[in-house]
Amino acid sequence: MPDHPISIELLEALRRRRPLVHNITNYVVMTQSANILLALGASPAMAHAVDEVEDFVAISDALVINIGTLSPPWVEAMRRAAARAVQLRKPWVLDPVGCGATAYRTGVAAELAAMSPAVIRANPSEILSLSGAAAAGQKGVDSSARSDDAVAAARSLAQWTGAAVAVTGAIDYATDGERVIAIETGDPMMPLCTGLGCGLSAVTAAFATVAPPLTAAATALAVFGAAGRDAAARCRGPGHLPAELVDSLYLMDQAMLERGVQVASA
Amino acid sequence: MPDHPISIELLEALRRRRPLVHNITNYVVMTQSANILLALGASPAMAHAVDEVEDFVAISDALVINIGTLSPPWVEAMRRAAARAVQLRKPWVLDPVGCGATAYRTGVAAELAAMSPAVIRANPSEILSLSGAAAAGQKGVDSSARSDDAVAAARSLAQWTGAAVAVTGAIDYATDGERVIAIETGDPMMPLCTGLGCGLSAVTAAFATVAPPLTAAATALAVFGAAGRDAAARCRGPGHLPAELVDSLYLMDQAMLERGVQVASA
Amino acid sequence: MPDHPISIELLEALRRRRPLVHNITNYVVMTQSANILLALGASPAMAHAVDEVEDFVAISDALVINIGTLSPPWVEAMRRAAARAVQLRKPWVLDPVGCGATAYRTGVAAELAAMSPAVIRANPSEILSLSGAAAAGQKGVDSSARSDDAVAAARSLAQWTGAAVAVTGAIDYATDGERVIAIETGDPMMPLCTGLGCGLSAVTAAFATVAPPLTAAATALAVFGAAGRDAAARCRGPGHLPAELVDSLYLMDQAMLERGVQVASA
Repeated sequence: MPDHPISIELLEALRRRRPLVHNITNYVVMTQSANILLALGASPAMAHAVDEVEDFVAISDALVINIGTLSPPWVEAMRRAAARAVQLRKPWVLDPVGCGATAYRTGVAAELAAMSPAVIRANPSEILSLSGAAAAGQKGVDSSARSDDAVAAARSLAQWTGAAVAVTGAIDYATDGERVIAIETGDPMMPLCTGLGCGLSAVTAAFATVAPPLTAAATALAVFGAAGRDAAARCRGPGHLPAELVDSLYLMDQAMLERGVQVASA
Repeated sequence: MPDHPISIELLEALRRRRPLVHNITNYVVMTQSANILLALGASPAMAHAVDEVEDFVAISDALVINIGTLSPPWVEAMRRAAARAVQLRKPWVLDPVGCGATAYRTGVAAELAAMSPAVIRANPSEILSLSGAAAAGQKGVDSSARSDDAVAAARSLAQWTGAAVAVTGAIDYATDGERVIAIETGDPMMPLCTGLGCGLSAVTAAFATVAPPLTAAATALAVFGAAGRDAAARCRGPGHLPAELVDSLYLMDQAMLERGVQVASA
Repeated sequence: MPDHPISIELLEALRRRRPLVHNITNYVVMTQSANILLALGASPAMAHAVDEVEDFVAISDALVINIGTLSPPWVEAMRRAAARAVQLRKPWVLDPVGCGATAYRTGVAAELAAMSPAVIRANPSEILSLSGAAAAGQKGVDSSARSDDAVAAARSLAQWTGAAVAVTGAIDYATDGERVIAIETGDPMMPLCTGLGCGLSAVTAAFATVAPPLTAAATALAVFGAAGRDAAARCRGPGHLPAELVDSLYLMDQAMLERGVQVASA
């Protein structure tokens, strides 16, 4: 881990701060993302009404916007929340779920990406689509593009938006448009559980309250991946993996982190 | 299993194809249905905005429409998605949750049933209500009618709609209006977990991408029931049953299937 | 347990009756609340469309209104459902999630509190905010106020609304404005699982079908807390606690209840 050591200290800082993370996220993952944030040491809030999202941003430490089950009233709330977060200098994370799958979804993702997120976290297909780098082979919301194909697209996207960009796959990458950090972690069983990527985006927002965007993105990838690897070792199928991952996050320490992650500058 | 053998080959074909199943389903079961589809070997998508449902149908291999937590904007999306699926000759499955409980719900279910679903999957009360065969003793969304009472209603419903109809209960039935397949499987603890029937409807849609409707319906009943029976044997209460069922689906093989299912023509 | 014995008989009465509990609740907890009700011995329904909520109230035995992820169309449904429940003399329970966090949320909670709920169940911050007794130190939807600070506020709220009020914290309290019952139960790990308080509100509604409000509130606190304590003893982290709690509710008997609860009049 030469230039970008991932250490447990940021997690300890997060646990001391217990940041309130406001989630405007999809129906499929709400419960899981809340439990992931609680186990990590953060405090979740879920609110989406136009009538109150700006007020929630004001009392929160960070924001996640995830377009998984978007619809027009939610998109309007996303716009307002993102604008308010930027105005109040609070970090926000964009998870452009399914970008590339439909024109509506891609349009909303592109609009939000231009609203100064601190971090964009997505799978390779979504990054490829969002960066416009390629016609992504998007299949629903799963990814059929390989994460290393998406590194160039992620760098472009980071340069275009000013955000750090995190791409998850067999190898994960985080980039600010110049530096690229490669992280080998996680487990092949993780994509068989719905919404773990969305949970990672929430974790990224929590870390963005105690570190600058690129460090937050890389640390979130490492901590979440190490938890997933630790958890998968106790599973014979994907059924209990989300609950085991929650326990691993709750019990995460330096040893579990080192055991589960290899980091290299790329 | 004389006339209607259920074999593992259809599941293997499904796993090879990895169909994308588009779900317009209720809030209660979204996470669970997605995880069930992933463990089975399919790929889930959840999207409901009128702005994109037709586009999602176009990239999907099958569609599930489940009215569990319906509201007017969602019903409009259901109408458009069903029409598009029929136009594109993609199979779609109707789960008329709570049909009979309220006039609104019964009306929506009847409207959708007339839109050429490949399969209708429901409990006996819902089938009785939807077929108009009887004043169903509907109690919320649980079933208080016995599944064998509903066989005649299921046959009528199949003849009226052109769909295969699957009825779940102590004994499950699948019919195309002429043939009736009776399947004994599952476990009495399954109704104590919310939304497993909805998960079965999603599984039915996945099988409808590799088999004609009646075979898909019967195979889904058998595979899902065998997984539930296998899973329940490891549970002392309903708490872990959904996760165990996911593991059983993930690990399903011919032996587990034969152990957990008796099939007979009725 | 001098004046307010909590006995297993009410739970047995509930299981015999199998009440249908209609939930208008937040997206985060729907699945979990449904499973909690099923394991307890009740039957859940989840429906929120203005087009059918009044009809659902009419066929249900009790109603829960939880404002966790409120928005204007849902609030209108909440108003209609509460009014109908009162008209039909069916008990309804208010869970004012996040009251105090935003003006919108506080306004809706106050409006609903004035609509004759049988029980209001909340955390200390929410009770303090809702009673107007203090400027609550609300942090998202978690509670940063101590439950004993909120007892006076709970008594005022009970007197103002006519509801029994249940406050959950390190020690739980139930009051009808005059009597105060203090209950020591539960486990410190429970707040690390999202939405268990919401699950308790659903359990309270189920008990309100077999007991008057104060008794229902106190019994729900005791039964749910004893289940949580029993479940937490089997957990090394919060990941499996919700599923374990479901099993404990399913297996609840007099011995588990006595083991997990101390009750005193305060």
